[in-house]
Amino acid sequence: MASVTQQPTDTDNANREAVRRLIEADPILVDVAPALEVVPGMTPNTILTSGAPMPWEAYFGGQRAAVIGGALYEELARDAEEADAKLRAGEIKLGACHDHGCVGSLAGIYTASMPVFVVENATQGNRAFCNFFEGPSPKRLNYGVYDDEVRQSLSVVETVIAPVVGEAVRRSHEGIPLRPIIRSALNMGDELHSRNSAATLLFVKEMVPLLLDLASERGADVRTTYTFISQGQYFFLRLSMAYAKATADATRGVRGSSMVSAMCFSCREFAVRVSGLGDEWFTAPIPAVDAKLFDGYGPNDIEYMGGESTINETVGLGGFAQAAAFPLQDYQGGSPEDMVGMNREMYEITLAEHPELKIPYFGFRGVPVGIDVHKVVATGITPVMDIGVAGRGGGQIGAGVLRAPLECFAAAARAHHDAY
Amino acid sequence: MASVTQQPTDTDNANREAVRRLIEADPILVDVAPALEVVPGMTPNTILTSGAPMPWEAYFGGQRAAVIGGALYEELARDAEEADAKLRAGEIKLGACHDHGCVGSLAGIYTASMPVFVVENATQGNRAFCNFFEGPSPKRLNYGVYDDEVRQSLSVVETVIAPVVGEAVRRSHEGIPLRPIIRSALNMGDELHSRNSAATLLFVKEMVPLLLDLASERGADVRTTYTFISQGQYFFLRLSMAYAKATADATRGVRGSSMVSAMCFSCREFAVRVSGLGDEWFTAPIPAVDAKLFDGYGPNDIEYMGGESTINETVGLGGFAQAAAFPLQDYQGGSPEDMVGMNREMYEITLAEHPELKIPYFGFRGVPVGIDVHKVVATGITPVMDIGVAGRGGGQIGAGVLRAPLECFAAAARAHHDAY
Repeated sequence: MASVTQQPTDTDNANREAVRRLIEADPILVDVAPALEVVPGMTPNTILTSGAPMPWEAYFGGQRAAVIGGALYEELARDAEEADAKLRAGEIKLGACHDHGCVGSLAGIYTASMPVFVVENATQGNRAFCNFFEGPSPKRLNYGVYDDEVRQSLSVVETVIAPVVGEAVRRSHEGIPLRPIIRSALNMGDELHSRNSAATLLFVKEMVPLLLDLASERGADVRTTYTFISQGQYFFLRLSMAYAKATADATRGVRGSSMVSAMCFSCREFAVRVSGLGDEWFTAPIPAVDAKLFDGYGPNDIEYMGGESTINETVGLGGFAQAAAFPLQDYQGGSPEDMVGMNREMYEITLAEHPELKIPYFGFRGVPVGIDVHKVVATGITPVMDIGVAGRGGGQIGAGVLRAPLECFAAAARAHHDAY
Repeated sequence: MASVTQQPTDTDNANREAVRRLIEADPILVDVAPALEVVPGMTPNTILTSGAPMPWEAYFGGQRAAVIGGALYEELARDAEEADAKLRAGEIKLGACHDHGCVGSLAGIYTASMPVFVVENATQGNRAFCNFFEGPSPKRLNYGVYDDEVRQSLSVVETVIAPVVGEAVRRSHEGIPLRPIIRSALNMGDELHSRNSAATLLFVKEMVPLLLDLASERGADVRTTYTFISQGQYFFLRLSMAYAKATADATRGVRGSSMVSAMCFSCREFAVRVSGLGDEWFTAPIPAVDAKLFDGYGPNDIEYMGGESTINETVGLGGFAQAAAFPLQDYQGGSPEDMVGMNREMYEITLAEHPELKIPYFGFRGVPVGIDVHKVVATGITPVMDIGVAGRGGGQIGAGVLRAPLECFAAAARAHHDAY
């Protein structure tokens, strides 16, 4: 046996540990509660928003409007001017979702009273949070819009939907495990980022027996809640995000690891974090999206206003599972061949394949997990992400596929090289 | 404009009409009722079974056992010997499902008191019927088993599940349209024959608001029914079969048409009917199935006991939509490449593509519909069918893919040539 075996480096060992944590994570939906009660570091006058943090003055457009909308919804200010002044003065504190166990959809606004899903990783014990889908209207706070209609939507979520879902979840005693839902949904046309249609139905299937129990006490609210969660094919996205955050956070802080532990946008920047490099964000300008826009919109209407649902790609969903979701071409453009090709590329920049979450079209090959910044730099292949597209002036105007910029991975690879 | 245009033949025109009827069919679930009340020609002492009809003496094995089981369940005889004697004497009448607007799953047993789905084609007005999935046990009457456990399953369906589902359907006023469910399910990994997981969830989604209304009056039955319909991923198969029968029957009797209007098995034969050739069955011996068997079973354990769920292939589902259902490889074997290849072949023997029911992997190409016996003969390509596999002694032992035998299409093509 004269073959030469290559000894694992410290980075290899560290990445193996990070991958193990990712694969073994077992996120369970255990509760629904107001952010103030459960989100670490949340205060009555804190607003969380998406992306690597910036000074308040750096936010613009939809993301800025969304933060101000959050202040008004939470009644921290009487009008936009007062909110702006208080944000400048630090009387309203602006925080980064990721630093509080949260992930933001688009602008990603969390205020104290907003209900959040509480997801606990049963393996490692860490918790993650995500707030609720606001409803089917294209006008939503997370898409940079705040008016009476948006306020009303948020209020229905806070006073009807979240309490009923929370009561049902608490009645389940052991919570609702999310990985089995995601596993099945990957067999049913979802990639769990831009398509959550099956996952939403599978979640509804778990909820119905609990809702039947509640129906006699509060029939009208149960009916409203059922309609809300079953009609919105996006309802589960916030749960796949919380699943992904609970999973990705378990991989943080493995000394020596070059594995990506988060990817996110603010209105100005794309940013990544690396497991072995602590909480530092490596940033780059936002690249162009290959989008399919709703009728009446053109490329000049696109505006970035943040987004952290790319935590799903960080753990092998979304763009990393496109070949599980051919129906997406209808929503975000592209062809089945493109989707297969992009998905295959993701195996070249990742460290492992998930043993349980699989892609039927690839003969049940596991989704590619564990983005290695060195592999990204060596191949020049950057992560593929399926994203919702916001428009100038707010609201969703389409969806598309975006390639992460290489520069932030290159910077992270250099920092990793310097550190280890 | 000197191009020579080929005039359509009478057969072309007839096939165009048959395809039009197939594509425009709009089957709606409108009721659930005992077979005796709604199935045309049903009598208290009639038993319907699958396949082109044969004399009672010709039935053997599981299909014979299932007919006798039906007689015992309906209390038409005290024991198997008496049932056999009455069947020989004609005191129990044996009928073919297809001649009564029904389609049988495997042995396909219908007796007078068994509840059936009533599906009405809103476009052409014809009705089709299918009885209920018996439950998750591999021991089922339709798989050739009858004992106390099977009787108990059938009884739960008759006294709890069917009445609750029926009451819910009637409360829906306009019924539950099946085509939209099938359209969505094709985007969610189902081909609607051997995989109905998404369709079952989509049907459940329609049912829940109706069940919530019933929950206060009959909570326990509603809960039992919810569990039954949501846990069995096969629940919707009987509805996709009724959809297909309502659709296929609308294409019967178009003078001159060479389009297949039914395909089915008995324990001895495979058989096809052709739209322009009336009710004649063209038969051939059953070919071998390429099956994936449950652990502990081998090819010698396979037994044919009839089956008419291939009505789904007749209208473009099942094997004709395999590329919509890559997860099926887990259940019935094969590879994604094989599934794509077989599915593509089906376009070579069909007359049209369905404008609404589409396959995402093929860039939303419509499923191939309208099998032309002449195209089958000219190409030598025969229909692909996804089937459940029964074992000697009864029960399901696996699933697989089967190619229809060429001979019955050749005989039908000759008869069509002679007639027109």
